Amino acid sequence: MVKSELVRPGAGVAELAEALIACPSVTPATGLVFDCLEEMLAPLGFAIHRAVVGEAPDGPVENLFAIRQGPQGSRHFAYAGHVDVVPPGEGWSSAPFAPERRGELLYGRGAVDMKGSIAAFVAALRDIPAEAGTISLIITGDEEGAATFGTVKIIDHMREAGINPDLILVGEPTSVHRLGDMIKVGRRGSVNMWIEVEGQQGHVAYPHLADNPITRLVAMLSELKAIKLDEGTDWFQPSNLEVTDISCGNPATNVIPHKAAARISIRFNDLHTGESLSKLVREIGAKHGASVRPVISGEAFLTPPGEFSAIVVDAIRAETGLDTEISTSGGTSDARFLKALAPVIEFGLCNATMHKKDEAVAIPDLETLSRIYARIVLAGLKRA
Amino acid sequence: MVKSELVRPGAGVAELAEALIACPSVTPATGLVFDCLEEMLAPLGFAIHRAVVGEAPDGPVENLFAIRQGPQGSRHFAYAGHVDVVPPGEGWSSAPFAPERRGELLYGRGAVDMKGSIAAFVAALRDIPAEAGTISLIITGDEEGAATFGTVKIIDHMREAGINPDLILVGEPTSVHRLGDMIKVGRRGSVNMWIEVEGQQGHVAYPHLADNPITRLVAMLSELKAIKLDEGTDWFQPSNLEVTDISCGNPATNVIPHKAAARISIRFNDLHTGESLSKLVREIGAKHGASVRPVISGEAFLTPPGEFSAIVVDAIRAETGLDTEISTSGGTSDARFLKALAPVIEFGLCNATMHKKDEAVAIPDLETLSRIYARIVLAGLKRA
Repeated sequence: MVKSELVRPGAGVAELAEALIACPSVTPATGLVFDCLEEMLAPLGFAIHRAVVGEAPDGPVENLFAIRQGPQGSRHFAYAGHVDVVPPGEGWSSAPFAPERRGELLYGRGAVDMKGSIAAFVAALRDIPAEAGTISLIITGDEEGAATFGTVKIIDHMREAGINPDLILVGEPTSVHRLGDMIKVGRRGSVNMWIEVEGQQGHVAYPHLADNPITRLVAMLSELKAIKLDEGTDWFQPSNLEVTDISCGNPATNVIPHKAAARISIRFNDLHTGESLSKLVREIGAKHGASVRPVISGEAFLTPPGEFSAIVVDAIRAETGLDTEISTSGGTSDARFLKALAPVIEFGLCNATMHKKDEAVAIPDLETLSRIYARIVLAGLKRA
Repeated sequence: MVKSELVRPGAGVAELAEALIACPSVTPATGLVFDCLEEMLAPLGFAIHRAVVGEAPDGPVENLFAIRQGPQGSRHFAYAGHVDVVPPGEGWSSAPFAPERRGELLYGRGAVDMKGSIAAFVAALRDIPAEAGTISLIITGDEEGAATFGTVKIIDHMREAGINPDLILVGEPTSVHRLGDMIKVGRRGSVNMWIEVEGQQGHVAYPHLADNPITRLVAMLSELKAIKLDEGTDWFQPSNLEVTDISCGNPATNVIPHKAAARISIRFNDLHTGESLSKLVREIGAKHGASVRPVISGEAFLTPPGEFSAIVVDAIRAETGLDTEISTSGGTSDARFLKALAPVIEFGLCNATMHKKDEAVAIPDLETLSRIYARIVLAGLKRA
């Protein structure tokens, strides 16, 4: 256990954040940072389940699930997050894992993504009596990496234990300019596809004796780019396809090559699935004699705005006065897995410095976020 | 000098061909094979000019120009060819530079491309009296290679010496199934272009913040492939554009790359020039933000069918009974340079085994070709 006085009873939100930042945890996170979190949660009455799972190359990975049971039949509110961080990189003004306050700002890797959010949630818990309902924390050590043995493995554990939350809040940094200006009720899905066209090699002077695979690949990519996958939905921007690589590797100027290849990336809304898009691209590929190998990174998710988003919007307005924007923009998150358990919404700190050098959080934001989280949990645990 | 009894006075065409084949001359050819040819031509009254020109990487290269002056004011007929050969490669039934007769066939590298043709022309010369007119041989040691210091340098020499042929016959193997079934009165031109598109790198989840260079490159290549350069002419097939390479080299599936590139090859007829096509592709490139770097390999040439082709057609019919096809198909040859001097036609042996293992010529074809060449020279030297 960590013997840090930062996590003493009554420590402020910033102190909790500092304690977590001070535990280096470049993805995948293990050991110390989980000890630190456990030391914060145990005194609040949480039962802690920790497990190290998976093998190389994507494992092993350490995860933590903490739960405090409410009265029989009470609702269950879960908070999800990760204690791993991206590598600090170069050029920091202070040591990335030595949290430093300068004025209103607290610097350190993970300040906003997302140890600050975890600290805010832990601080919020102190104001929520056990009678309010069941509360759990789904905390992975591998969200920034392959995520093969991260949140999905905690979900497996919860299912085996018969634990079913009613609502899940993911604490990712969704705010843009000011704390609370944006929440995410969905994320697009993502699929990459490797395309290959085999032709018939030959001399450029005798094209009728050859079959140029680049001609067919270009025609296929043109057709793919010309497709309007959709017009967007009430909650999603239109799905988008980008060609991210092309290759052939033919050094001979007078030779029609044998083979050509490309790679595409599609970010898609909930009108599609990775499978439906794979089928579409395969069908177009078949017309051009191309083979298509899809790898689905994540499906789209949407928690249609309603009761849950209203709770979050109201809590933000009460503490900040802001009318939050309900968004589905940006890349994937672990919400792609959690959506299988319960409605999921993402809300956290400002993301301006995430993944950058000198990552920093405004200390007043930590305190405000903690109060907003407390409001959300209390409202979420109330029976409608 | 070569002391081969193969080149004794009165040697048959096949023996002359064997003598040349027995001098290994993988491109660029030097020394021995030129000595051998000189030994054949000197006794026939030819003045020989030999020169080694050029520097690395495309040189040095050895060339030979032989001329026998006819009476004052007579016409001048030139034969052009090369003594270099492509590398033999693997899998021959007999040693590639040890000419071997099996039945009617003579095997050896260069048998048809084009030592056999040179032998046939040399043999033909014996039947042509000096009074018939001026005859010259333009023989390079670098036609199969870069050709930077080959035929072009002999042309320089001829211009400096004030030597202007009236007609030029290139002895390349133009026959397809039977000797005399095809002659070439033109060749297409050739230009390669390197295309590069710079965009703006970014994350695939935020395409509006990036500018995908592959999207623009694919659009440009589609537009290029959709262009009908021409419908062909009376004497040329339609010009043709092939994309011979594409490249990007982006390993990151979630990144829109910064740059993408392609290479195209255009084989074009005499409705275009390398320059006009460069301008066209540059204009299309400008629309797509692409830079275009053209390298012109050769311009198209055409000797419009008329007096010269009639001479060749008649000579072939007289010796073989065949109605020859007048063609402009296939790749470039040194005729692209020689066209600047005089009307050029190409005619030679069957090309089925050229550049392949077990290259072979039918000995009766050598004898027939020699008789056809004699008819062509005699008719070509007559004033119309």
